[in-house]
Amino acid sequence: MAEYIEGKRPVIEALRTGVPVERLLIADNLKRDSLVQDILRKAKQAGVPVEETRRADLDAKSERGSHQGVMAQAKPFAYANLQDIVERANRQAEENGGHALVVILDHITDAGNLGAILRSAEGVGAAGVVIPNKRSAHVTAATYKSSAGAVVRVPLAQVANIKQTCERLKEEGFWVAGASEKAETTTWEANLKGKMVLIMGNEGEGLARLTLEACDFLVALPQMGEVASLNVAQSATACMYEWLRQNY
Amino acid sequence: MAEYIEGKRPVIEALRTGVPVERLLIADNLKRDSLVQDILRKAKQAGVPVEETRRADLDAKSERGSHQGVMAQAKPFAYANLQDIVERANRQAEENGGHALVVILDHITDAGNLGAILRSAEGVGAAGVVIPNKRSAHVTAATYKSSAGAVVRVPLAQVANIKQTCERLKEEGFWVAGASEKAETTTWEANLKGKMVLIMGNEGEGLARLTLEACDFLVALPQMGEVASLNVAQSATACMYEWLRQNY
Repeated sequence: MAEYIEGKRPVIEALRTGVPVERLLIADNLKRDSLVQDILRKAKQAGVPVEETRRADLDAKSERGSHQGVMAQAKPFAYANLQDIVERANRQAEENGGHALVVILDHITDAGNLGAILRSAEGVGAAGVVIPNKRSAHVTAATYKSSAGAVVRVPLAQVANIKQTCERLKEEGFWVAGASEKAETTTWEANLKGKMVLIMGNEGEGLARLTLEACDFLVALPQMGEVASLNVAQSATACMYEWLRQNY
Repeated sequence: MAEYIEGKRPVIEALRTGVPVERLLIADNLKRDSLVQDILRKAKQAGVPVEETRRADLDAKSERGSHQGVMAQAKPFAYANLQDIVERANRQAEENGGHALVVILDHITDAGNLGAILRSAEGVGAAGVVIPNKRSAHVTAATYKSSAGAVVRVPLAQVANIKQTCERLKEEGFWVAGASEKAETTTWEANLKGKMVLIMGNEGEGLARLTLEACDFLVALPQMGEVASLNVAQSATACMYEWLRQNY
């Protein structure tokens, strides 16, 4: 199903942050105020076709009823294949003395967390990020902003089955580390050298049972506060930088 | 000036996330729908006095005109003194074999970043966080949510002058490390052992010139992506965990 971005400011934000837009729909009776002029200018710069349409058509397409006479139809996000990521990782490992990182997100549901993790994954030079194709946050227009654009710079693949994906990566010579509060080994004690898969669990429940079974070992970040207080994006950032430290 | 939280859902969120509320104001003609009943129940549980008032009074207090007949007056946030943080750090250092961490935020302006950094600071057991009292994000009701409540668990001080604060902390035996993209030393190469001050710069401009002068040394997190892509809260998390690793 096509994703539409509704309303003047959201459409400006989408064009500004580089969301690939299929076409811009504007109501045929739309007042050309300064915001609309800005939108038309940005659309022209980005080569986005503009179609005038009846306001009733916009109403019919609108999910929130907040289109203000302006909607942008986003292009479907181009997910990578797992194979693309494996090949990129193997190439990186050859060039970089043997190390490469693939991050798997085990049913992360918050779109902001997905964006933030993509941003950190790009920061450490990860080969790619893998998410399940069901019950998981996926890429929407908001991801371009929350990832600061990293969503187009680090390959992101959707897979049907996390456990099978781990098995596939193990065959390619990866070690699979699961981040879990239950781990008895800190990220610092663990050997994260070489080709690693890092799996981060769901916000509420952590790693699923089948995912835990697929891990070669588990690692934890010590939590010194009164409550386990890091969110999954912060944990992912700290774990990924520890991988980079050990391989730098 | 008193901070008011406006509208049914924001007030519920404030009560849910533990924002200290002075009093709840509700319009005397307010329809007691299920949201309002939820608010009154939560206010009672939290011991918050409820005052009925004329809707025109709420209009007069409202900044956004979106009060829906419900406003909560937040208690002023109780900032710590720098001295409290110094004493807490010295106590921690005595108990923990000599290490303690104070985080200084050099004019961070995004309230979400402030909350996220407080959350990570609690996660690593930092003694406290210091912010300037001008041109800086400060604690609002939103900070309770973005910090996941950590704002009440890690002391936060406001100071007039970052450089003088650094000098004061140096007198107490702290080393002052500034996080800067210009640094030639990585966080991993730097010696972060013992009593450390970590200074994170403003989102756009990094560390101010006077702040740079106050630093004993600068550290950087390597950025392996196409652009320097971490935001300041992610950088802070990775730096703080590296401090913890070296002192664990």
